[in-house]
Amino acid sequence: MAAATEFDGLRVVLVAARNPLNIGAAARAMSNFGFPHLRVVNPYEAAFREARSAVGASALLASAEEYKTVADAVADCTLVVGTTAVRHRELQHPLRRLEFGTRLIRKQLGSGRVALLFGSEKFGLSNAALSHCHWLMRIPTCEANISMNLGQAVAVCLYEMVRDARAARSNEKIKRASSAELERVTTTLLEAMRASGYLDRRPIADVEERMRRLVRRLNLPSRDAVVWLGILRQIVWKLRSKGAIRTDSD
Amino acid sequence: MAAATEFDGLRVVLVAARNPLNIGAAARAMSNFGFPHLRVVNPYEAAFREARSAVGASALLASAEEYKTVADAVADCTLVVGTTAVRHRELQHPLRRLEFGTRLIRKQLGSGRVALLFGSEKFGLSNAALSHCHWLMRIPTCEANISMNLGQAVAVCLYEMVRDARAARSNEKIKRASSAELERVTTTLLEAMRASGYLDRRPIADVEERMRRLVRRLNLPSRDAVVWLGILRQIVWKLRSKGAIRTDSD
Repeated sequence: MAAATEFDGLRVVLVAARNPLNIGAAARAMSNFGFPHLRVVNPYEAAFREARSAVGASALLASAEEYKTVADAVADCTLVVGTTAVRHRELQHPLRRLEFGTRLIRKQLGSGRVALLFGSEKFGLSNAALSHCHWLMRIPTCEANISMNLGQAVAVCLYEMVRDARAARSNEKIKRASSAELERVTTTLLEAMRASGYLDRRPIADVEERMRRLVRRLNLPSRDAVVWLGILRQIVWKLRSKGAIRTDSD
Repeated sequence: MAAATEFDGLRVVLVAARNPLNIGAAARAMSNFGFPHLRVVNPYEAAFREARSAVGASALLASAEEYKTVADAVADCTLVVGTTAVRHRELQHPLRRLEFGTRLIRKQLGSGRVALLFGSEKFGLSNAALSHCHWLMRIPTCEANISMNLGQAVAVCLYEMVRDARAARSNEKIKRASSAELERVTTTLLEAMRASGYLDRRPIADVEERMRRLVRRLNLPSRDAVVWLGILRQIVWKLRSKGAIRTDSD
């Protein structure tokens, strides 16, 4: 993920949050994704800083800045973005989907502080709070249940901020078995099939080619190929040592 | 977002979850993002179905299927994916980042059911549970605090499943003001500046070009341009009716 310093300029602002457990959960998600700065406006519970839900984020919660008004909480920010579940509120605000909005936020973070506002659990952001926002952002939830839990909404928004588009294209670092390794597995499998008498009972046309393709379809990681080879060799050894030997020249 | 039917094949499987509030929160996130099928293996609290945290998802929670073992819970699935916070567990499992893993899951959902496993809040998935998985997936959290709340982890994973890559590129549907509208704003602004005597007190070289650029930089939505034009026209009318008139020919 991106370096934490990239997100030093973001202020997560919880406005009139009712449940201190949700404030703690928001702090935990911030800590998970590397956003250190929390601001709280008029929380319902003054003692929110002790919320046990802030697992691993007690320092972040302790250092949260408290404000009486949204205006004060966003005064030093050059971009203020409100979050909403509503799609067609009659407001004079552009409404952007999370996937696109976070791109604009990341861009703005290069030159100034950005406030990301979340409203209360029951009512979301008030019209007064929304009037401080440059634009709004929504998480693409289903029509049937658009309203998210506060802590979960914060987690999803911050995840989208740190999400790495390149990681979606490919993140495979597993070393696959080489053709030589796969060929050794194939050869030994064939030996085991012969030594076990399998091919006598169920003759297969073009058996080598068929088994070669069967083994390729396993798409084995290199280290797994080593394990399989070991197992098969042991089986072959045992089959042969038992006298149940059948050689190619039989 | 994608149609709900696309995700009918996914089973969210919570293994040995301790806190019923977290099961409810998981159900809520599933409902938010359109994943109807929850499975629960050996929950710590038998009465998890009453969890009040399942806001808007009580039906989903009521229809959750309960299992004694992971094997039973994933028996009908053709792909089983475990979630983990750990990066380098010594397991014989490929570990994929969420951004990439969800792509593989979506692909698999075209041909079979997929189980997405989440472990208990304290210990994650046990080695026994992990042994049922084809591969593991991790959310890209910070080293400093890798462990997420269960409900938040479910929300983030499901969000990534429904996330629309096209929406990240552009989601702008705001109709911007046309050049003609912007020119009317510019002209009326200049009238107001002249009628107010502003330009007499602070003469500006190339004033028309400068104001034209100033107005363009506002990047006005079309409907806002209409509002600004109305305000400026009223100002001009009032200035002129007060006899404070200064025409271009003065």
